[in-house]
Amino acid sequence: MDTWLTSLITDTPQQGFELAITLSRRGVKYTQPDTEVLHKLRPEYANSADSLTAASQVIAINFQTVAAANDYWKGKKG
Amino acid sequence: MDTWLTSLITDTPQQGFELAITLSRRGVKYTQPDTEVLHKLRPEYANSADSLTAASQVIAINFQTVAAANDYWKGKKG
Amino acid sequence: MDTWLTSLITDTPQQGFELAITLSRRGVKYTQPDTEVLHKLRPEYANSADSLTAASQVIAINFQTVAAANDYWKGKKG
Amino acid sequence: MDTWLTSLITDTPQQGFELAITLSRRGVKYTQPDTEVLHKLRPEYANSADSLTAASQVIAINFQTVAAANDYWKGKKG
Amino acid sequence: MDTWLTSLITDTPQQGFELAITLSRRGVKYTQPDTEVLHKLRPEYANSADSLTAASQVIAINFQTVAAANDYWKGKKG
Amino acid sequence: MDTWLTSLITDTPQQGFELAITLSRRGVKYTQPDTEVLHKLRPEYANSADSLTAASQVIAINFQTVAAANDYWKGKKG
Repeated sequence: MDTWLTSLITDTPQQGFELAITLSRRGVKYTQPDTEVLHKLRPEYANSADSLTAASQVIAINFQTVAAANDYWKGKKG
Repeated sequence: MDTWLTSLITDTPQQGFELAITLSRRGVKYTQPDTEVLHKLRPEYANSADSLTAASQVIAINFQTVAAANDYWKGKKG
Repeated sequence: MDTWLTSLITDTPQQGFELAITLSRRGVKYTQPDTEVLHKLRPEYANSADSLTAASQVIAINFQTVAAANDYWKGKKG
Repeated sequence: MDTWLTSLITDTPQQGFELAITLSRRGVKYTQPDTEVLHKLRPEYANSADSLTAASQVIAINFQTVAAANDYWKGKKG
Repeated sequence: MDTWLTSLITDTPQQGFELAITLSRRGVKYTQPDTEVLHKLRPEYANSADSLTAASQVIAINFQTVAAANDYWKGKKG
Repeated sequence: MDTWLTSLITDTPQQGFELAITLSRRGVKYTQPDTEVLHKLRPEYANSADSLTAASQVIAINFQTVAAANDYWKGKKG
């Protein structure tokens, strides 16, 4: 596979959250690399409340990792 | 996407909990950006005990992150 | 919403566990604020083993947060 | 409710694991205090592989908390 | 119950992973101690992709605990 | 079983993510060692959005462990 992850450090928490989304999608893609299949599956979860909650949960778990890596961007006060 | 997350630091644990809710909803919204679809799905999970428990679980995971970022608001005794 | 969470610090681990329950219920309530709907849903999960396990899991996740906030009440030996 | 949790500190990791089981069961019991109902639900999950896995997962989450509280009983080498 | 867990410390990460599997199985066994029932349930989950994923998840959670206990075997570079 | 895990330390976060995938698959394989069965189950989860999300979640949990072991590769800025 191509190089897609060289660092967990991001400038802002929002970029960190978006990195967590990337990690979540890559977890799917390593398991099912066929993008055509993935494309076909999209309506199945994008229109199901429970599937969306499950997707949000994976993002939350990955965001824990990214946030810890960035020491929670503690210097930044919104 | 717009800027919606500039810091994980909040003044109170309750604000932190509410930020955890925001993170959970954003996790859904990044996966399904169409607000009309999201609106239609609302009755599906808002009236299902198991879906609400699942939603509460995602909030709990995100609250772990926000709480750690704020060093658990340790100075605050209720 | 009213002020319901001013601190994660509790005197005993049991109070901390009960705070974790409060956090879990609030996670539900923020998602479905209509107490009448929540009341109607109660039999659905309170009589399902899997729903009760799921509820216990959310409590366990929130208890991790509360316990860390209290440095695990390390001074207390039962 | 009675006093059932005065400390997270245990002498051995096995006692810690058993405390994690207690926490998991209490999470259920706070949600459904009626022991008769709980008794009736037992066959439903005790004979389902997926329910048992879910129960084991809640124990695993609570064991993380108890193990951290005991600094992983690091002095003990089996 | 017999003594089965005297330490979380292992020599290698692989032994730690195998201890995580033991913890996961014990979590099931404390909930359903009847080995005959457990034996009958085996085909139900060992032939279901989702059940196997769920089992792997419990192992992953327990492995977090064991890995932290061993300070991630940081001295070992593969 | 053969030796397959001698260290959690990797050079890059991407290698760490791929190790997390290995851990997730091994968790399945310890539970169902019959590779023929595993092969037959593949279509069941590789074509289900919810199964893929669940697989991604186990990877996310294992990635937390691997990332912590590597101190989040903090020296690496992408």
